[in-house]
Amino acid sequence: MPESYEDPCLKIFSLNSNKPLAEKIAAVVGVELGKSSVQKFSDGEMTINIEESIRGDEVYVIQGTSYPVNDHLLELLIMIDALKRASAKTINIVMPYYGYARQDRTAKPREPITAKLVADLLEKAGATRVLTLDLHTVQLQGFFDIPVDNLFTMPLFAKHYQDCQLQGEDIVVVSPKNSGVARARVLSKYLDASLAIVDQTDREAEIRSGYVIGDVTGKTCILVDDIINTGETLGIAANVLLEAGAKEVYACASHGVFSANAAELLGAIPFKKICVTDSVDIPEAAKLPNLDIITCSELMGDALKRIHENTPMSPLFGYRA
Amino acid sequence: MPESYEDPCLKIFSLNSNKPLAEKIAAVVGVELGKSSVQKFSDGEMTINIEESIRGDEVYVIQGTSYPVNDHLLELLIMIDALKRASAKTINIVMPYYGYARQDRTAKPREPITAKLVADLLEKAGATRVLTLDLHTVQLQGFFDIPVDNLFTMPLFAKHYQDCQLQGEDIVVVSPKNSGVARARVLSKYLDASLAIVDQTDREAEIRSGYVIGDVTGKTCILVDDIINTGETLGIAANVLLEAGAKEVYACASHGVFSANAAELLGAIPFKKICVTDSVDIPEAAKLPNLDIITCSELMGDALKRIHENTPMSPLFGYRA
Amino acid sequence: MPESYEDPCLKIFSLNSNKPLAEKIAAVVGVELGKSSVQKFSDGEMTINIEESIRGDEVYVIQGTSYPVNDHLLELLIMIDALKRASAKTINIVMPYYGYARQDRTAKPREPITAKLVADLLEKAGATRVLTLDLHTVQLQGFFDIPVDNLFTMPLFAKHYQDCQLQGEDIVVVSPKNSGVARARVLSKYLDASLAIVDQTDREAEIRSGYVIGDVTGKTCILVDDIINTGETLGIAANVLLEAGAKEVYACASHGVFSANAAELLGAIPFKKICVTDSVDIPEAAKLPNLDIITCSELMGDALKRIHENTPMSPLFGYRA
Amino acid sequence: MPESYEDPCLKIFSLNSNKPLAEKIAAVVGVELGKSSVQKFSDGEMTINIEESIRGDEVYVIQGTSYPVNDHLLELLIMIDALKRASAKTINIVMPYYGYARQDRTAKPREPITAKLVADLLEKAGATRVLTLDLHTVQLQGFFDIPVDNLFTMPLFAKHYQDCQLQGEDIVVVSPKNSGVARARVLSKYLDASLAIVDQTDREAEIRSGYVIGDVTGKTCILVDDIINTGETLGIAANVLLEAGAKEVYACASHGVFSANAAELLGAIPFKKICVTDSVDIPEAAKLPNLDIITCSELMGDALKRIHENTPMSPLFGYRA
Amino acid sequence: MPESYEDPCLKIFSLNSNKPLAEKIAAVVGVELGKSSVQKFSDGEMTINIEESIRGDEVYVIQGTSYPVNDHLLELLIMIDALKRASAKTINIVMPYYGYARQDRTAKPREPITAKLVADLLEKAGATRVLTLDLHTVQLQGFFDIPVDNLFTMPLFAKHYQDCQLQGEDIVVVSPKNSGVARARVLSKYLDASLAIVDQTDREAEIRSGYVIGDVTGKTCILVDDIINTGETLGIAANVLLEAGAKEVYACASHGVFSANAAELLGAIPFKKICVTDSVDIPEAAKLPNLDIITCSELMGDALKRIHENTPMSPLFGYRA
Amino acid sequence: MPESYEDPCLKIFSLNSNKPLAEKIAAVVGVELGKSSVQKFSDGEMTINIEESIRGDEVYVIQGTSYPVNDHLLELLIMIDALKRASAKTINIVMPYYGYARQDRTAKPREPITAKLVADLLEKAGATRVLTLDLHTVQLQGFFDIPVDNLFTMPLFAKHYQDCQLQGEDIVVVSPKNSGVARARVLSKYLDASLAIVDQTDREAEIRSGYVIGDVTGKTCILVDDIINTGETLGIAANVLLEAGAKEVYACASHGVFSANAAELLGAIPFKKICVTDSVDIPEAAKLPNLDIITCSELMGDALKRIHENTPMSPLFGYRA
Repeated sequence: MPESYEDPCLKIFSLNSNKPLAEKIAAVVGVELGKSSVQKFSDGEMTINIEESIRGDEVYVIQGTSYPVNDHLLELLIMIDALKRASAKTINIVMPYYGYARQDRTAKPREPITAKLVADLLEKAGATRVLTLDLHTVQLQGFFDIPVDNLFTMPLFAKHYQDCQLQGEDIVVVSPKNSGVARARVLSKYLDASLAIVDQTDREAEIRSGYVIGDVTGKTCILVDDIINTGETLGIAANVLLEAGAKEVYACASHGVFSANAAELLGAIPFKKICVTDSVDIPEAAKLPNLDIITCSELMGDALKRIHENTPMSPLFGYRA
Repeated sequence: MPESYEDPCLKIFSLNSNKPLAEKIAAVVGVELGKSSVQKFSDGEMTINIEESIRGDEVYVIQGTSYPVNDHLLELLIMIDALKRASAKTINIVMPYYGYARQDRTAKPREPITAKLVADLLEKAGATRVLTLDLHTVQLQGFFDIPVDNLFTMPLFAKHYQDCQLQGEDIVVVSPKNSGVARARVLSKYLDASLAIVDQTDREAEIRSGYVIGDVTGKTCILVDDIINTGETLGIAANVLLEAGAKEVYACASHGVFSANAAELLGAIPFKKICVTDSVDIPEAAKLPNLDIITCSELMGDALKRIHENTPMSPLFGYRA
Repeated sequence: MPESYEDPCLKIFSLNSNKPLAEKIAAVVGVELGKSSVQKFSDGEMTINIEESIRGDEVYVIQGTSYPVNDHLLELLIMIDALKRASAKTINIVMPYYGYARQDRTAKPREPITAKLVADLLEKAGATRVLTLDLHTVQLQGFFDIPVDNLFTMPLFAKHYQDCQLQGEDIVVVSPKNSGVARARVLSKYLDASLAIVDQTDREAEIRSGYVIGDVTGKTCILVDDIINTGETLGIAANVLLEAGAKEVYACASHGVFSANAAELLGAIPFKKICVTDSVDIPEAAKLPNLDIITCSELMGDALKRIHENTPMSPLFGYRA
Repeated sequence: MPESYEDPCLKIFSLNSNKPLAEKIAAVVGVELGKSSVQKFSDGEMTINIEESIRGDEVYVIQGTSYPVNDHLLELLIMIDALKRASAKTINIVMPYYGYARQDRTAKPREPITAKLVADLLEKAGATRVLTLDLHTVQLQGFFDIPVDNLFTMPLFAKHYQDCQLQGEDIVVVSPKNSGVARARVLSKYLDASLAIVDQTDREAEIRSGYVIGDVTGKTCILVDDIINTGETLGIAANVLLEAGAKEVYACASHGVFSANAAELLGAIPFKKICVTDSVDIPEAAKLPNLDIITCSELMGDALKRIHENTPMSPLFGYRA
Repeated sequence: MPESYEDPCLKIFSLNSNKPLAEKIAAVVGVELGKSSVQKFSDGEMTINIEESIRGDEVYVIQGTSYPVNDHLLELLIMIDALKRASAKTINIVMPYYGYARQDRTAKPREPITAKLVADLLEKAGATRVLTLDLHTVQLQGFFDIPVDNLFTMPLFAKHYQDCQLQGEDIVVVSPKNSGVARARVLSKYLDASLAIVDQTDREAEIRSGYVIGDVTGKTCILVDDIINTGETLGIAANVLLEAGAKEVYACASHGVFSANAAELLGAIPFKKICVTDSVDIPEAAKLPNLDIITCSELMGDALKRIHENTPMSPLFGYRA
Repeated sequence: MPESYEDPCLKIFSLNSNKPLAEKIAAVVGVELGKSSVQKFSDGEMTINIEESIRGDEVYVIQGTSYPVNDHLLELLIMIDALKRASAKTINIVMPYYGYARQDRTAKPREPITAKLVADLLEKAGATRVLTLDLHTVQLQGFFDIPVDNLFTMPLFAKHYQDCQLQGEDIVVVSPKNSGVARARVLSKYLDASLAIVDQTDREAEIRSGYVIGDVTGKTCILVDDIINTGETLGIAANVLLEAGAKEVYACASHGVFSANAAELLGAIPFKKICVTDSVDIPEAAKLPNLDIITCSELMGDALKRIHENTPMSPLFGYRA
């Protein structure tokens, strides 16, 4: 059991999106979660009850904005407003998962940039700092005027695959799409592996397909993405790799959203293993037999302590064998 | 069919909360609703497609934030962001119903003021003006730095009851709770009726009850509230009035939310008639046999035109027999 | 003599609106008032001299914006500017009386919302927190983006009337107008008394009059309002109650403004007693023989200490028998 | 009678500080002043009634902030708030006199910079543009983020003295204090005159005195200042000049504030003539026999029209013989 | 000679970074460039002289922030300040090249996000809209709260290579680094070509090298990047391709910065052709014999007109064969 | 060697404009300068490397914005951005020299107010406080909303000249131009000297010349200015004084910019001595034999400590014999 944290001004609260992870992060820090609850009225409106004084405290609110994203986002904004008016000294938002992150540019005319809107809303409500995990694009940090610490998951996956003896020249790390090559490249360096890309047709295409750029014949492939949503992108990529002669296919992603029938779709493809973190509270139905879940709680709890104690965050960015 | 409005720079869009009302408002103005759609992804995130150019236009977005309030609010905020980035000249929000309006003060320690938060979010997203209908408290106007025109429904109800011959000394207009007496008083003046109040126990009480302040014996009572939510407040008030000797009880409210089992609850009480506006898209289940729905579309459409044409709004605030 | 407060970073300054109250509040806290003065030039312009260093201090400025409201408001704004530029750590405004509070909505077209304007001006000048007493409407809290603690006077009046043995079924607490029933209701609960309302004609009416809603025959009535301004509202209400058979009439109000010939007007009506707090510095002429003044200094001083020490404010909201 | 101005969207309102000048400016533009009034309640609070629609109009509000400065400033701020909420298109402030202009720096520790505070308050309330006349220091323009057009009075005085045949080598233009030499220098160029300075002891000195820098023996001196407040600065300077052998002394200043016993003080000194503009509504008592008042209404009205018609302001800055 | 544009409220000014392009854009629109100059003082400070009235005008300022970036950025900021204070109606910034765009995230601890800083500075100075060309990352749009239209150059290059008969299966479009694959992919679709990537060692590596992912043997390769800076990235990539058996290598990039000894470096490598736009004013020394410069002036001028006339920008994003 | 300062949260960094002064200020405070460097890329873009953690620290950045002003300003803005994102607790800017200070008003139509722009940019980037030295005009303080402490150099020069026995009635302190008389007057008081002014033709004049206002015959003159830029103003003034019979001429100025051929120009004039502070890093070429450089490091270091320790700044404004 964790030792109790000394500074009584550090308060951690969790909202509803991922209470198990919040419990783990609080344990890493060495505090109990603060007492609060979200009350939902019959007409769908919500309010927040903070059941202990937080005057002058440094408050950390753990809330990813995963499904249902709008409810989780409003919970968070209302909580920030309540904390601000109740005189919290600082309001630090811990977002293991940042919803709407993919709407980060106007790809077509008259599109919103919802990822920026979310940043604006959080700041307007009164957030004073944000801690995130593997943002969809790193440029999102620049959407904020307040400090943002964005943690990386690739070191976690690197350690995981090394523990599984998956490294060296038999391994190819593969990006399942032409964007996001950077993540794959980082992991390939950690694993002394080569790099390939599956170039897929656009999401709007009627029949999605793809082909491999690079050589995977007879190799063990590790597909790397940031989010598993419908599973379609990873699924197509896996099939393309197997058709191109890959020996076996692993997959990993930072955030296991598993929406729609992702579990069914991915279950039908012969992945050796799929690995995600617990940044999103994974629905039971999506807990496939070959799914490994590694925790980001130590990383995030450690970061939270460093923020509170003003010690540098840099050690968390390197490799931790 | 509506005559076409002359100025092509006036564009009206509707989101999803109350399309029938939006159609009617657009018809009053004399334009077709702009082409747009809300796209919902499998993970619950949404985006907006605005399917016609709005560069330099004066855009009106019709969206109440009724159930499900968080989704409707996010639809609205995302729409505003898209319009701002697509260079709308002005972004005018038409909110027949303002969700979270009752959370307008910190009644207990550490409560949020969500009604103010909503105002802040709308302004931050880029709204340049708001048109509302019978706000829960008129002070909400002051939550905004942009112009807010708040229309009143009491003239509509006054006309309705006059058409029904419900006026004069046999009538008592009753506020079903000790707050909100102002609305009842306005209606009583219109109807040359007297005024009474049902003072109810607090919402937190285990068994809610009440008693009448004022005289209702042998009178026809008209209960007036701004929102019918669970129906409990009106229901208790009606019973109290009948027990106190009222001859018959009518009820009216600006916004027919009808959450939970409101329909069932209200159906079990011998109201002569219940009257609401169409500010909220009333669920079929709540359309009781004794429910009258009067439209606010003419009032709102007229206001919208006055905003666009810079003609004074004041004629809309008086009585229109 | 008050014990000296330990933390030298707590500084309290008073401006000119209510120095006696400021002295009392400072005594409750246990500090001397800081040295400062308002200098007025021959052309009516003012400046502030702060005669001790406040670099890095937590400064509390006590200033209600009672008559002359514009001068008192400008004193306050200029003081805030000076403190900001002189590097105060926090600038906490203690406003026992909030001038312009009644201009909190646009009742008629093209009216200002001056209560919101005042909030905006205070924030723009650099205030970081506000402590108020019984705001005219609680929604005013939402006019601010900074924390506002609004204290209630009803517990003070409840204790006062209990000490006078005025409680139980012989007592009716009466709201002298149809708005503001909430205050009367809170006091009636404290005193186990019943509730009534005097509904008066509009302020614009040529001859103001009213009638009682509820039963007062043979009862001792306590009229409750937030502000005694011209005294007219209370005066009319008292006459209406007496005509309706009330045995005797008391009156209380949080803020004793006593403008115009209020003293004369109220002196001519057979009130048993009138009770106000010392939130406003009551002019000598208004100190009628039957006027009781109870102090809000303990309540406000206690609140000030709680703000400074980050202890919860909630104990101050309950009853203190 | 003025010709009617064509554009109905141009509306000019005057508040209470200088209605005669406002009438003249409106006449120069060719419009009637808009209908509005300031209502003052018995407790000193004020409100504004704007008695005609200004939706979408370009509104100009004429209000100097001369004595009583706080009331006039609040009138202005409340008017701006009302115009903003009533949907004025632009809110242009015409300030012939800018109160608190001399508090433009922190001369001593912990002083406010009230001139900046006033700028901030005007912008926060909602002003979109400012037109001023001979600001105490030109740097005040930079206190605003909105456009400020600052008109100069020296061309008006130059024309005045030329009409009086006061130019050439017999004339010395004198600055009555060591700051403000720039104004004197501009006038001396217009009049082909030489320049001198009266260096006075600091305002805090017990006995104020001074001496001339430069040569004035046998010359006609014209003292130039921006504000005549108590008259002391000009009075001492005049005496110094006469003692130093000046033949005769004239004085001019842009703004005739005449506070305290300025009239008496200046009346006791043998000025040939004193000349001011009508930027401040000069009290009757100050209208000395040797006082010339020249109007700034043509200059300001012309500027107002140029602002409205988007024609360059530059012709107004040169000389107009 | 260009036809004169009708609306006199449209004004285009050019600062110093790329006058030839500004002249061309103005010609496309059909106006003369406005008269203005940048004055540089002996101590290095600059000021702007705008030599014609722009009151109420819609002003477009053409200024890329290429070398020397700080001087060009300050020119732009000072120009915006001058325009704002001189009452321009809108201030539209046309930036063919956005300096500091690559500093768009904190890659290492304690790094600035200068691309966001630049956006903030432009908005703070008073810019109301931005028009850019092929931003380094599209997420930069979200750094702004004002509308940003980002034009793409790939259609221009597609047309160029089609005119050169470079399309079909003999062609491989190659991204010279693992980021920026999206651009290469877009061009490959236009040219019906396949896709490859050169994965290079990190910029910090002592000896930079790379290898091809994908098949280029016997193929004509077209390298695509957004910026040619030192030329090293393209140079290494070209060598890698040739070693891997490519038949011949072309290269194109949106922005020809050509810093350091880029010209020398690129001149030593057997590129068939290098193609850039004129978004940056290319130094004479860098005009290699095999350098093709295509103009972006029609694209940008067309966009500018569409902004001014409120016609949709969407036609500019598609292909224009 | 200075004793080490106790509080590890105080961090001082220097950028590139004046490292020698920064070293001295740090020594006065008793700390080592923090480790950081400015990296300049081949295309002229810069970035900042902060090589130690500053989380939660109170950071002071020493950077005057002397030549090259734009580069030095951008260094500063980028540093502030980096510090803000790296979670510095406060960001205090120490500017011994404030570039663009003279552009503090719009002297001609359509001029920028660049001194205000610079203030806005610093605040927008994230500066929380500014410490300056002898600002060109004191009104610049009011351009900021954050606290600004402006130190004066006249006490330093007073002490310097007293040490040189230059005081009393043989001395005339002379302002070399009609603006800036205030500085000369302060020094004349310190030295019990009389005061004179050289009135020069406008800077735009083809042949600049001047004449003395006041009496200097046979006197030792000390010219006082804030900035020595081209040296022309001082040079002309010195010649005018000598022609008018001055015995000998000294000159002093707070900031020794020495742009263009200032050294050559001033070297050709028989100044007894010229004295400046080290607020600007004086180029070797400008170090004339008769140039005295007095250090402002003790004054600034002392002020920095007072800011950090929240002790009053006022002792630094008086005289220190």
